Amino acid sequence: MMKSRLFLFCLLFLAVVTVALGTKETSSFFPYRGREEKYGENNIYVFEDQHFITGIKTQHGRVRVLPKFTERSKLLKGIENYRFAILEANPQTFVVPNHWDADAVLFVAQGRGTLNLVRRGKRNSFNIRPGDVIRVHAGTTAYLINRENNENLVIAKLLRPVSTPGQFEHFFGPGGRENPQSFYSAFSSEILEAALNTRRDRLQRLFGQQREGVIIRASEEQIRQMSQHEEGGIWPFGGESKGSVNIFKQRPSQSNQYGQFYEVDESHYRQLEDLDISLSFGNITEGGMLGPIYSSKATKIAVVVDGEGYFEMACPHLASESGRSQGSQERETRIGASYQKVHSRLRRGMVLIIPAGHPFVTVASTNQNLQIFFFNVNARNNEIVPLAGRNNVMSQLEREALELGFGLPAREVEQIFRSQQEEFFFQGPGGRQQREESGRADA
Amino acid sequence: MMKSRLFLFCLLFLAVVTVALGTKETSSFFPYRGREEKYGENNIYVFEDQHFITGIKTQHGRVRVLPKFTERSKLLKGIENYRFAILEANPQTFVVPNHWDADAVLFVAQGRGTLNLVRRGKRNSFNIRPGDVIRVHAGTTAYLINRENNENLVIAKLLRPVSTPGQFEHFFGPGGRENPQSFYSAFSSEILEAALNTRRDRLQRLFGQQREGVIIRASEEQIRQMSQHEEGGIWPFGGESKGSVNIFKQRPSQSNQYGQFYEVDESHYRQLEDLDISLSFGNITEGGMLGPIYSSKATKIAVVVDGEGYFEMACPHLASESGRSQGSQERETRIGASYQKVHSRLRRGMVLIIPAGHPFVTVASTNQNLQIFFFNVNARNNEIVPLAGRNNVMSQLEREALELGFGLPAREVEQIFRSQQEEFFFQGPGGRQQREESGRADA
Amino acid sequence: MMKSRLFLFCLLFLAVVTVALGTKETSSFFPYRGREEKYGENNIYVFEDQHFITGIKTQHGRVRVLPKFTERSKLLKGIENYRFAILEANPQTFVVPNHWDADAVLFVAQGRGTLNLVRRGKRNSFNIRPGDVIRVHAGTTAYLINRENNENLVIAKLLRPVSTPGQFEHFFGPGGRENPQSFYSAFSSEILEAALNTRRDRLQRLFGQQREGVIIRASEEQIRQMSQHEEGGIWPFGGESKGSVNIFKQRPSQSNQYGQFYEVDESHYRQLEDLDISLSFGNITEGGMLGPIYSSKATKIAVVVDGEGYFEMACPHLASESGRSQGSQERETRIGASYQKVHSRLRRGMVLIIPAGHPFVTVASTNQNLQIFFFNVNARNNEIVPLAGRNNVMSQLEREALELGFGLPAREVEQIFRSQQEEFFFQGPGGRQQREESGRADA
Repeated sequence: MMKSRLFLFCLLFLAVVTVALGTKETSSFFPYRGREEKYGENNIYVFEDQHFITGIKTQHGRVRVLPKFTERSKLLKGIENYRFAILEANPQTFVVPNHWDADAVLFVAQGRGTLNLVRRGKRNSFNIRPGDVIRVHAGTTAYLINRENNENLVIAKLLRPVSTPGQFEHFFGPGGRENPQSFYSAFSSEILEAALNTRRDRLQRLFGQQREGVIIRASEEQIRQMSQHEEGGIWPFGGESKGSVNIFKQRPSQSNQYGQFYEVDESHYRQLEDLDISLSFGNITEGGMLGPIYSSKATKIAVVVDGEGYFEMACPHLASESGRSQGSQERETRIGASYQKVHSRLRRGMVLIIPAGHPFVTVASTNQNLQIFFFNVNARNNEIVPLAGRNNVMSQLEREALELGFGLPAREVEQIFRSQQEEFFFQGPGGRQQREESGRADA
Repeated sequence: MMKSRLFLFCLLFLAVVTVALGTKETSSFFPYRGREEKYGENNIYVFEDQHFITGIKTQHGRVRVLPKFTERSKLLKGIENYRFAILEANPQTFVVPNHWDADAVLFVAQGRGTLNLVRRGKRNSFNIRPGDVIRVHAGTTAYLINRENNENLVIAKLLRPVSTPGQFEHFFGPGGRENPQSFYSAFSSEILEAALNTRRDRLQRLFGQQREGVIIRASEEQIRQMSQHEEGGIWPFGGESKGSVNIFKQRPSQSNQYGQFYEVDESHYRQLEDLDISLSFGNITEGGMLGPIYSSKATKIAVVVDGEGYFEMACPHLASESGRSQGSQERETRIGASYQKVHSRLRRGMVLIIPAGHPFVTVASTNQNLQIFFFNVNARNNEIVPLAGRNNVMSQLEREALELGFGLPAREVEQIFRSQQEEFFFQGPGGRQQREESGRADA
Repeated sequence: MMKSRLFLFCLLFLAVVTVALGTKETSSFFPYRGREEKYGENNIYVFEDQHFITGIKTQHGRVRVLPKFTERSKLLKGIENYRFAILEANPQTFVVPNHWDADAVLFVAQGRGTLNLVRRGKRNSFNIRPGDVIRVHAGTTAYLINRENNENLVIAKLLRPVSTPGQFEHFFGPGGRENPQSFYSAFSSEILEAALNTRRDRLQRLFGQQREGVIIRASEEQIRQMSQHEEGGIWPFGGESKGSVNIFKQRPSQSNQYGQFYEVDESHYRQLEDLDISLSFGNITEGGMLGPIYSSKATKIAVVVDGEGYFEMACPHLASESGRSQGSQERETRIGASYQKVHSRLRRGMVLIIPAGHPFVTVASTNQNLQIFFFNVNARNNEIVPLAGRNNVMSQLEREALELGFGLPAREVEQIFRSQQEEFFFQGPGGRQQREESGRADA
């Protein structure tokens, strides 16, 4: 049923890590199929290869979409009106123009291309590169080329549907009878004849074709013609300031030898204002770790852009859930202070959900940086609260509060929460161990 | 159960098309009972006579309400917190004062009357006429007279409930024991005695009666007394600028020989600001058509105010739905580019839902103008995107994009999308055919 | 399962009415277990002792939470994303620091204490007293002491969860292996060693303990140390103006011999702005009554803070519901004007839901003032509409409208609605009867 239906401007991750530049062979962004370890039945916060709905995989690219989050768990209800998708377009390809019934924020994870957006009777072209963040208004007609010879173009996309909550569709004007079908072809011939003032046989020639898909090969000449845009360009959509922003051009909000953290919110990019979304990017040095921290208000939808490592999170909701299943079905909230540890290996292409308030940590492997990109939903007035290192929240408490809370002399508690001099990024357990081992070897 | 319960300030459509002025005989706004054609099982976007909940039909008027939209289809979830109703009051009638637990926007579709709104301790009277748009805050006490001798007063109303999403009720202060019951009568006698400082027997006389309904006949003298208001009047509700606005007094945003399009949004009428609703009105000349267009963000709830014609819309959601039913139940989104044609005859009183992003067209019959009024929900930053005629979105694309998208030489595609010189309104298929036939006859 | 899981900074009502100052014996805020009268099956608007989820009752305090409102009835869907809780802490106790994944507004119903809030790297201390209103942002770390020797501290709390609609959890940093568990202990030891730069054995000592609960006894010296804050204090959270406001320091918006009404909204306390919540407090003199009134937009969640009395409300939704159960299940709205009387005795600790638009009245007993605190949800532009007394809404109607609406001569109707000279608060039925009786005795 689905085989010849094609698939859209969206996003695909196909990553070439140790990218063999000069070859067109590319490895998938999701190189593994099986799970190497068991996460337990309740790890509802981690999405891997098998959780995506595959749009289509042609020879020229792929589109993948995560199902509505509440299909995974009711605990994800807070983000059920958001959808996550990944587009991956091979070198020298074209993504056919289309619009969708959703507001969206795009993040360029890999590659270089040109994105065209048509809105309010004007077309704007963006030469895009990794780190670019672009807000696309619902109903904007968009198309895209990957103008590179060797590298795939990978774009992550967060969508907020505007007509039906949690559901969106793509609408192709260009197209034919099939693959993709043009929405023009859904109208009666007499309607089209009258609207386009054109005879039926010519329309038949235009809209009657079997097409080749939504991601198709473009010639070098076509690529060249469509790439002739000024870098950055002028944003013609009145009053909206910048058309895009690059997250790596911001001053990192956190930076030390163990990592850097970049952020883009409505103060950097006014177009995010009505969406209440912000974005952040963590580059964790090999052997380093980010956190433990929590977000005060925002729920994070995170994508592993590169590297490997692992993730731990404390979740009281899951603890409640499992407690509940043994008790009453009715009473859906049990107030308690007990947490379930959520943990997972991390690899490129995995998606994590980190709800507001939940303490978490991400750790890079000892041989490669771990890069994670975050869409932050419900971002206004969000605060990242540090649970270790300089200025951690425990170090703000009075001595008596520490004493009463932990049941140990205040001095002992203070000593522990003041031992770490770094902030936000720390040396991870692996790096620590290596150091200790080399220390021992030295001794 | 429902027979003696009566019904309220709201709206009724009872239309007199070729209005025999001078007679009091009026034909219903919904003159047909059966469907002339089959629309298929899935035409969830069209509401006719039989879809309305009939409040009551007395000799003096009617009120009809559409059920919650999600009772029709989950695809209408985006508007499930809105309700649509029609009030139709006979000549020289009075609608008993009441308030409701919903914010509302009223559109006067036909007739002349006087509307009174009591809010913040002040009463404002409006002499209303066709095209008037009035925002009514939740909890405002409203009453109404039809002061005409011959014509019914017809008001369409969009409601956004404030206490229970998607549900609203009417609260009558004036009333008795029944038909309508006064809400005062729900209190204990001792409460009423104390609150109104009045003896039980007098209260019994006031609230103990069997009343005659919520739409009742008023005497000529009563009508005359209640009509003595300055036209337009002063709006006493501080800081809210105008109390009403007439859509026909706006400069049409689109106008040619095939039709005119009028719009009212928060920039014309500040009271719409917190509702995120705008309104528009299309008058399509006989033989003309409106569109194809789509709305970038807003979902339209449209009412056929006069005339006949038809409607076509391309819907990918329905295509997905039907695809889905053959496949997995679980995976609720299938990304594809295939559309189902939604089509329907149009007649006075029909209601259409046109979701954001969906290309549609409406065509007038060849013997009468087709007039459609639109409530636009989620209206902020909405753009109407033209798919044919001058400035259509396809004419904004680069030559290479057209070539790659349609698989034909760019020149051929451009020719087609530039053949139509008109904008927004076009000669429809019927008009076109007539012209051709008359051309042939001339030859 | 739940026995050793403890419970949090929230709120408990344990009231000492005729407070025997100097003794530590306190009576429960909910002194009654059984219902004295039957309210009928459908009194979904009243919550009593047995409707609360008991967190835990230790020797030092209690926490109680109402279940999600929609577990009681679908009619409460408009407030299903809000939760209500009560904290009650014994004299000289400490509530262990924690944050929660919900925005909250606190109301101090009884007692004196010190509240600490840690946010954006700063700690603010508030000496709190009855009438204080404090907005607490999601993710803020909060702790609390009851610094009185004799009186319980009782705080009512309205929560709006930020990660999962209608669900929230508490996150304890201080804690141990259990009772409460520290969220730190959910992380692997190697993570904690690295993050806190501390050896495993010391962490084991910190996080490995069995703790004594979330409300614990503090020594006089600890209380003294933690109470050394300036009254009111400086609010260090930039740009947010005041940290708290006391409702009794506002000029009453209504006041006469039968009662006083106090209000706090975003104009008094800017921190309420993004929550769209306001607060009000009615002190009804013994023998007096408040109303009948209705709120135009806001739904009220009311707590009886002190006294006894009763409550009546007119509800058309319930009338529809019961009508419906005999008819079609499908058609969820029947427009009619008929009301069910909702009535209930009122006692300290009871919670009432009063939806927008619904006329209601509350009556104090003849031997004690009745004090009710209201959280108003959906508060912006809310108007309180008087149905009796000076400026009541009926007195705004034209003579003809009264005549037609009530079916009696206008003069007779006007006389009734103008007999009461007071406003908002009136002499209640009991007080009235007493007066009449004493009048008779005089005669």
